Amino acid sequence: MAAARMQLLSTRNVGILSRGWLTGDGPRVRSLTSPPLCPSPGRALSSVSATRCGLPKERMSENGVSPRAKVLTVDTMNPTVKKVEYAVRGPIVQRAVELEKELSEGIKKPFAEVIKANIGDAHAMVSFFPLYSHTSFYFKVLALCSYPELLNDSRFPEDAKSRARRILQSCGGNSLGSYSASQGIESVRQDVARYIEQRDGGVPCDPDNIYLTTGASDGIVTMLKLLVCGKGATRTGVMISIPQYPLYSAALAELGAVQVNYYLNEEKCWSMDISELRRALDEARRHCNPRALCIINPGNPTGQVQSRQCIEDVIRFAAKERLFLMADEVYQDNVYAEGCQFHSFKKVLFEMGPEYSNTVELASFHSTSKCYMGECGFRGGYMEIINMDEEVKSQLTKLVSVRLCPPVPGQALMDLVVNPPRPGEPSYDNFMRERTATLSALAEKAKLTEQVLNTVQGISCNPVQGAMYSFPCITIPEKAIKEATDKGQQPDMFYCMKMLEETGICLVPGSGFGQKDGTYHFRYTTHDYNILG
Amino acid sequence: MAAARMQLLSTRNVGILSRGWLTGDGPRVRSLTSPPLCPSPGRALSSVSATRCGLPKERMSENGVSPRAKVLTVDTMNPTVKKVEYAVRGPIVQRAVELEKELSEGIKKPFAEVIKANIGDAHAMVSFFPLYSHTSFYFKVLALCSYPELLNDSRFPEDAKSRARRILQSCGGNSLGSYSASQGIESVRQDVARYIEQRDGGVPCDPDNIYLTTGASDGIVTMLKLLVCGKGATRTGVMISIPQYPLYSAALAELGAVQVNYYLNEEKCWSMDISELRRALDEARRHCNPRALCIINPGNPTGQVQSRQCIEDVIRFAAKERLFLMADEVYQDNVYAEGCQFHSFKKVLFEMGPEYSNTVELASFHSTSKCYMGECGFRGGYMEIINMDEEVKSQLTKLVSVRLCPPVPGQALMDLVVNPPRPGEPSYDNFMRERTATLSALAEKAKLTEQVLNTVQGISCNPVQGAMYSFPCITIPEKAIKEATDKGQQPDMFYCMKMLEETGICLVPGSGFGQKDGTYHFRYTTHDYNILG
Repeated sequence: MAAARMQLLSTRNVGILSRGWLTGDGPRVRSLTSPPLCPSPGRALSSVSATRCGLPKERMSENGVSPRAKVLTVDTMNPTVKKVEYAVRGPIVQRAVELEKELSEGIKKPFAEVIKANIGDAHAMVSFFPLYSHTSFYFKVLALCSYPELLNDSRFPEDAKSRARRILQSCGGNSLGSYSASQGIESVRQDVARYIEQRDGGVPCDPDNIYLTTGASDGIVTMLKLLVCGKGATRTGVMISIPQYPLYSAALAELGAVQVNYYLNEEKCWSMDISELRRALDEARRHCNPRALCIINPGNPTGQVQSRQCIEDVIRFAAKERLFLMADEVYQDNVYAEGCQFHSFKKVLFEMGPEYSNTVELASFHSTSKCYMGECGFRGGYMEIINMDEEVKSQLTKLVSVRLCPPVPGQALMDLVVNPPRPGEPSYDNFMRERTATLSALAEKAKLTEQVLNTVQGISCNPVQGAMYSFPCITIPEKAIKEATDKGQQPDMFYCMKMLEETGICLVPGSGFGQKDGTYHFRYTTHDYNILG
Repeated sequence: MAAARMQLLSTRNVGILSRGWLTGDGPRVRSLTSPPLCPSPGRALSSVSATRCGLPKERMSENGVSPRAKVLTVDTMNPTVKKVEYAVRGPIVQRAVELEKELSEGIKKPFAEVIKANIGDAHAMVSFFPLYSHTSFYFKVLALCSYPELLNDSRFPEDAKSRARRILQSCGGNSLGSYSASQGIESVRQDVARYIEQRDGGVPCDPDNIYLTTGASDGIVTMLKLLVCGKGATRTGVMISIPQYPLYSAALAELGAVQVNYYLNEEKCWSMDISELRRALDEARRHCNPRALCIINPGNPTGQVQSRQCIEDVIRFAAKERLFLMADEVYQDNVYAEGCQFHSFKKVLFEMGPEYSNTVELASFHSTSKCYMGECGFRGGYMEIINMDEEVKSQLTKLVSVRLCPPVPGQALMDLVVNPPRPGEPSYDNFMRERTATLSALAEKAKLTEQVLNTVQGISCNPVQGAMYSFPCITIPEKAIKEATDKGQQPDMFYCMKMLEETGICLVPGSGFGQKDGTYHFRYTTHDYNILG
């Protein structure tokens, strides 16, 4: 069945590569020009922008600009915001939404529905894949927390009630509607600490080092805010993998930090090479001050799982080069490939002995949005900080207090993720059945994705070891590259737009994540049941 | 009863003003030194920081800094973050938490419990004031959304179920656990637009101009991000009222914008004077580029409600001076004083005719956290943008997409706030009873606060016309001011710390909000039942 459905992608991909676009006899794509959303860097840094931004009003009038012109225009707005790009929700997704609307209005398309394989959102796929939708345990507890009168309802199991009571007792006024401490509810941070200790084989975890966040993104941006400073050649550089998850490039652009790219090794299943880190660092030091190294493991968009040895090497490198480590570990339960295992940076750090565990500064991030939970909408997450300077930690606490607190329902959900039903509790069997089914299905899809994509002409795909994505390499013929270039488009954006228009499948072009020059990819979300399932 | 309880504050305040601190024979305050949280501006800009921040690693080593020193220290971190202050959750609240812990450990204090009148968090007060806790309608709908099986439960009313169904149908996979559109769920934005139209007597509202946010704070910071640019004398200036809600000063510090203070007129019940706006603007133009004017109405921390005439004058001023208007209207339902009425900036703008309504750029903010709802923990909110340049709007949409989406339960709650039970629906009577009781109780407290505070020696308090706060002026004797100054503390911080240590009442010193030099205040949250009720 899987292979049959995959024909959709397979045959249409071949079609896209051979029909129309190459020979000129296929249907034309209706709108391939970039919307004004993502101006090219040239535009963002145009001389208009540079000269007008920030001019006092009087001088603007002298310059002949009407006083009734808008205060805020694309030429007078914050130029760092203009440099921000976020492909996962970029122009291709906007076009997908338009197509959905056109379909609903009865406009004929070569497909009956748009399939959004652009984003790792499991709940949105619930109609295709009910097992992955959620574990009903979470939702029972959230209902109890939302409307505590249900605590008297005998249909709710005792373990759900005890979780709800513990959460509510930690909330001001016993209500999810109160602000929590800015760092997060204390009992939730205690539960997170216990979870980390158990995960890491007993390595101690202090709840005071846990900060609950609004999804992992919030924690990552907050840490980057603390780190970025300096000007010109002393401006902070932050090392990120290429391909990367574009939150990183977007946040660095907004903060005006220098993005220091290190390339993952596609030939070796997207592994990290220390020699490549060394090259990137040495080059960067000529023009900025690299101070932090970000790793996404398991990988997004590349789906690799780093080996223990690799993590140890990275830690040694960071210690020697005095880099602050940021470990994005939101896919820690999503490991599928045989022989692969998730190793937390913290555990490896502590196993390397006090020379490292007492000195290397590390922030690790987790979330309620991925793994088997997939509860994206609640925006729950946490970060753990290790070896952070005490004064900096006070500054961090102060900084998060300005935004009052992370959403309390998300904090409650984070608590359930780290404190799931235990053996002997009434919800345990059902919870484990759902969890196992979800993770098995994801593992099966990961395998299927690799197998099937590799049967498609012009596509070559690494094994999907973990996370929820594959990032296959695509061959785009010279003539197509030229046509894209003539239109001022990235060839892979051109490819993905064509794929969307012809098949209704919404992928994100590799250029949104970064890739080696001259190579083309797309990110494909492997939990999308409708194509592969 | 109210007056009796108020004796607590009254007598203890007199005590604080006359005992101990003035005569030297009272108990000493245990810890009044500022924690490292909020370094003085001098510290934040110290030469150490300026020279070391951002230096490349090699140069650091040459400078004799050990390679094992921390990467991130208070001297090498982002200096703009250090300048951020947020008094509402600052050192005084940390001391309050410590005191609560000491009480729970059995340490004797002159009080039995700590009363947190520092923050506008109604739910946390639920044990004192059940009516204000929440309207059970909201919580029923949220339970239904969390655990849709309850839709089959006959004990839930039909109007709650229909709200829940509408919300769930708009969610991916019919689940709160999915990401929503970054701008927010479309049906919620439609409901917000209808609410605004009704509130503003039919002035049209386009759902495309509504952005759902993570509380109002998120919207305010996002708008400021778009606005702030330039360097040196062309750096963006943002006009904010003094006293102000410290989110503004914190966000401006973080963005490196110039904070342009205009003072509210305490003698005229904290009203806005155009002449004062003019003075502030003219002075600011000598050293920066003022581009935005922020107004909080009803006022936080000052509790005033601006007149329609004042709003019209402000709009005319903004139009003439080409300022982007930001109207913080989160207390729009909290108007108590006779003769006072809430006028939205948008409504007044449209009543002034096309010369203004077609040109003046405005962003208005609302939230689920205040008014009669008080649902702070859900972090729900929205902003409406008027006359925003289309390209800037695209940039805004892009910017919010990086953080994926506001928390979906908060979006659901925002929907209920703007779409409450209607006459004839089963929950209507109960909802209105709760709403009216809550607002009446808040109105009574507002009046009581003014009356009782004005009976206390050394305190003088304006009428609390709206919002949830009073900002009384306090007289601090010279000797006490000297003692505070000797300790390097603001006199009002010294006063509030002493009040906390002696009475257990946690107030926020006026210096955290800003005040005229030589005057002293504190912010008192009027919904705190325990002191005044």
